[in-house]
Amino acid sequence: MKFLLLIAHGSRRQSANEEILRLAERVSGLAENDFDGVETAFLELAQPDIHEGIARCAERGAQHIVVVPYFLAAGAHVNQDIPAEVDRARAEFEQVSIDISTYLGANEMMARLVLDCSRQAS
Amino acid sequence: MKFLLLIAHGSRRQSANEEILRLAERVSGLAENDFDGVETAFLELAQPDIHEGIARCAERGAQHIVVVPYFLAAGAHVNQDIPAEVDRARAEFEQVSIDISTYLGANEMMARLVLDCSRQAS
Repeated sequence: MKFLLLIAHGSRRQSANEEILRLAERVSGLAENDFDGVETAFLELAQPDIHEGIARCAERGAQHIVVVPYFLAAGAHVNQDIPAEVDRARAEFEQVSIDISTYLGANEMMARLVLDCSRQAS
Repeated sequence: MKFLLLIAHGSRRQSANEEILRLAERVSGLAENDFDGVETAFLELAQPDIHEGIARCAERGAQHIVVVPYFLAAGAHVNQDIPAEVDRARAEFEQVSIDISTYLGANEMMARLVLDCSRQAS
């Protein structure tokens, strides 16, 4: 069983966190051939946190988790905080293999996405 | 003459700002049929700011500018700060029409981009 765990920064505004949940639902709809489930976690300011997100995947039977950092830039959150949380979870969930993907902003499709946004101007 | 102005938050880390400049170059390479030029501006913490970014487009002959907010969530930056800065620029550059596109996180391609990231896991 393979799960995708989408990790966002988290916000004090619940509406921003709900945007992430809706995005995860859309990812889930697209990911049926790649993943058995999609979960969401937040680095700070919202729940579930990363540990809880990984625990939820494990409870659902995940043997393999791909963590996708939903961040635009390679700052301390991407380079240090998320890997540190994932390392802690690896020590606790030894039976689960956990990989971290490239962060969102590094994706080669990003330029096309920016251009697509520009076509939705008002 | 139509320009795309990519607006990012801006960071104290120069490397994060440079990521945006490189992204804008890739957008420019893809946008030849849509735009005569691509410029970048930062809401805070980095230069050029939004006013300066719009001024640069105007100096290069822009009659129309599409502002693309490079933000993941619809918070105060997207809903208030960027529109306010753009309104100030509209008053100054009356000959230029300026539209604001949907922000990055609202783009329908985002779920596909997240899934694509997941395939680049290590």
